[in-house]
Amino acid sequence: MGRMLGKQSVVFDNPPYIIEGASIVGQKEGEGPLGKLFDVVEQDPMLGRDTWEEAESLLQKEAIQKVLFKSNMNKEDIRYIFAGDLLGQLIATTFGILEFEIPFFGLYGACSTMGEALSMAAITVDGGNADNVIAIASSHFASAERQFRFPLAYGNQRPYSATWTVTGCGSVIVSRQKGFAKISGLTTGKIVDFGVKDAQNMGACMAPAASDTIYQHFQDFNTRPEDYDKIITGDLGVVGKTILFDLLNEKGYDISKQHMDCGIEMFDAGTQDTHAGGSGCGCSATVLTGYVFRQIRKKAFKKVLFIPTGALMSPVSFNEGNSVPGIAHCVQIEIA
Amino acid sequence: MGRMLGKQSVVFDNPPYIIEGASIVGQKEGEGPLGKLFDVVEQDPMLGRDTWEEAESLLQKEAIQKVLFKSNMNKEDIRYIFAGDLLGQLIATTFGILEFEIPFFGLYGACSTMGEALSMAAITVDGGNADNVIAIASSHFASAERQFRFPLAYGNQRPYSATWTVTGCGSVIVSRQKGFAKISGLTTGKIVDFGVKDAQNMGACMAPAASDTIYQHFQDFNTRPEDYDKIITGDLGVVGKTILFDLLNEKGYDISKQHMDCGIEMFDAGTQDTHAGGSGCGCSATVLTGYVFRQIRKKAFKKVLFIPTGALMSPVSFNEGNSVPGIAHCVQIEIA
Repeated sequence: MGRMLGKQSVVFDNPPYIIEGASIVGQKEGEGPLGKLFDVVEQDPMLGRDTWEEAESLLQKEAIQKVLFKSNMNKEDIRYIFAGDLLGQLIATTFGILEFEIPFFGLYGACSTMGEALSMAAITVDGGNADNVIAIASSHFASAERQFRFPLAYGNQRPYSATWTVTGCGSVIVSRQKGFAKISGLTTGKIVDFGVKDAQNMGACMAPAASDTIYQHFQDFNTRPEDYDKIITGDLGVVGKTILFDLLNEKGYDISKQHMDCGIEMFDAGTQDTHAGGSGCGCSATVLTGYVFRQIRKKAFKKVLFIPTGALMSPVSFNEGNSVPGIAHCVQIEIA
Repeated sequence: MGRMLGKQSVVFDNPPYIIEGASIVGQKEGEGPLGKLFDVVEQDPMLGRDTWEEAESLLQKEAIQKVLFKSNMNKEDIRYIFAGDLLGQLIATTFGILEFEIPFFGLYGACSTMGEALSMAAITVDGGNADNVIAIASSHFASAERQFRFPLAYGNQRPYSATWTVTGCGSVIVSRQKGFAKISGLTTGKIVDFGVKDAQNMGACMAPAASDTIYQHFQDFNTRPEDYDKIITGDLGVVGKTILFDLLNEKGYDISKQHMDCGIEMFDAGTQDTHAGGSGCGCSATVLTGYVFRQIRKKAFKKVLFIPTGALMSPVSFNEGNSVPGIAHCVQIEIA
C-alpha cells in the first residue's frame, strides 16, 4: 500500500522494484558522450520504414522486445503497458505496442511522460493490481519537428535556447519481484504556467515546474539536496538549468552539487550543434535506462530523484498565442 | 488492495467509492433526449471565448467546479486529477485544469479516456495513494472537427456511418469516503486492429475492441450478460453496435437486452441530423455522470459495466494511410 505524504507525495512502505531497463537511440545520440551506454544504436533514422512516425513506433517495439529479452520475460508476463510519446493522439505508441496485445494505458505528459509512466506503474504494482508492468516513452527528432515546428527540408534556423529532440526510446519493467532498484516515493507535479510563450525556449517554460516539484518533494519528505546522490531533471538544457538553480536558491535550496540534466548529458553541444541540449520524452527515458540504471547497479548512485519535465503545448495552442505551461513528475529511486 | 483476476482484470476487495459526478454539455446535447439530465447546458458553443479550444478548456474548468460544489469539497481536498481530451497534446485539459493547481496525470485513450481515467483513479485510491481524486474527460464538436477533419466553414458532407462529436465534459470524484456507488472491478483493454481505414466510420473501428474487452470481462469475472443491469458502451453508434452484437454472438454472448450505447442515447438521430450517434470522450463522460449515475442513485441500475471505446488515430496517421485501431476500457460500477 502507498501512503500519502505531505501535500503532493506518496511513499511506498513495500516499494515496487525495477527489474530491468532498455534503451534504443538514433545515430546522433549514439555519437554523444553517453553513446556506448545504450543497448541499441539505430544507424538509419527511418529504421527502414517509410515515415518518421513508423520509425518512432519501431523504437517502441524494439525497446519492449529488448527489455523483455534482458529480463528473460515474455509479453504474457506483462500485465499493463504505461506508455506515451509526443505526437498528437500518441500514434507512435499506438502502432509501436499494438502487436504485443498487452492492456494499455496511454499517457501524455510531454517530455515528463517517463516520470508519469513510472509513477502509474509503481502505484499499480504497489496496490496489488499487477505483478509486472512496462513503463515506456519515446521521441524522434524528425517526427517531433514535423509535429511541432517546420518541415525538415525548410532548413529553419534554431536559436541557442532551442533543444534537440532525442531519437530514442527507454523502457522499464516495474515488478513485485525483487530487482536492482526500487521506487520508494513519488511527488506528482501540477501544471505551472509562468506565461512564457517562446516555444523555442522550452527550458524556460519547464524550469518553474521542475522547481515547484523538487521544492515540494523536499518539503513532503523532509529532505535536503544532500540526501540524494543525484537530482536528475529531464531536458531543461543549459538555459532551463540556470533558471531552476535560481528558483530553488530563492527558496533556500542549492542543488548544484547533485544536479544533472539528461538533456545536457545526451549531446556534446560544442561538436554536435545541439544548442541548449537534448529533449523529448525519449531523452530522459534513455538516459535513465542507459546511464542512471548502470550507476545504480554499480552502487555509484544509491538514491536519486528522477524528475522529467514537460512543456505543455501543441501547434494549435502555440498558433493561438497561448503560453507554454510546464509540468514535472518526481520519482524517487533507490538501490534495492 | 486490488487483486489480479484472470487475464486482464482487477477486482477490488474494498472498492473505492464514487461520491459525485457532474456534467456540462453544449446546446445540441441539451436539446437531445437526455438534455434535462445534465447539470449545465451551455448555450454558446464558444462559451464566450475566442477559440474552440479555449471553449473546451472552460468545459473542463466548469465540470471540476461543479463536481466540487456538488460534493461540498474544495480543490485542496483533491489529491490528483486524471484527465484527458481528444486534442493533440491534451491542450483542452492543460488550460482547463491549470488554475486548480492539483497534481495531474494526463491521459490519452481517444474516446475511451473516461474509462482510463476512472481505472487509474480507482487503482490510485484503492492503493492508499489518495483520499479523493477527480477523473474527467471532455470533447468539443468544433475543436474536434478542426483537429481531425475539415474546417467547419468548408461544409463537408458526412456519411451516415459518421458520428457527431459531443460538446461536453463529465467529471467524477472517486474517494475513500462512502459514496452512492463503488468501482468494484476493471478490465483494461488492449489495442485491437481489424485494419479498418475509414475514419468516418469509427464505430466499425472500435467495435472489435469493445467486443474483445467485454468478452474478456465475462471470462475473467466468470459472469454473463444477465449479471448486469446495463452494459454501456461509449460511442459505437448504430453501425458499431451491430458489429459488436455480431462479434459477441460469435463468442456465445447475447448482450442485446442489457446493452446501451452513450452515443446512441445522446441525440435523436432522426431530428438532430447526427447520423450514427454521438462520439468524443465527452459523450460517455456526460452520459455516465448525467444519466447512469441518476439511475444508480434511484436503484434502477444496481450493477453496470461502463466500457467507453476509443479510435486510435491522428490526422498524421490517417494521412499516412494507417488503419484506425480501437481500444476499450471496462469499469464495473455497483451500487454502494
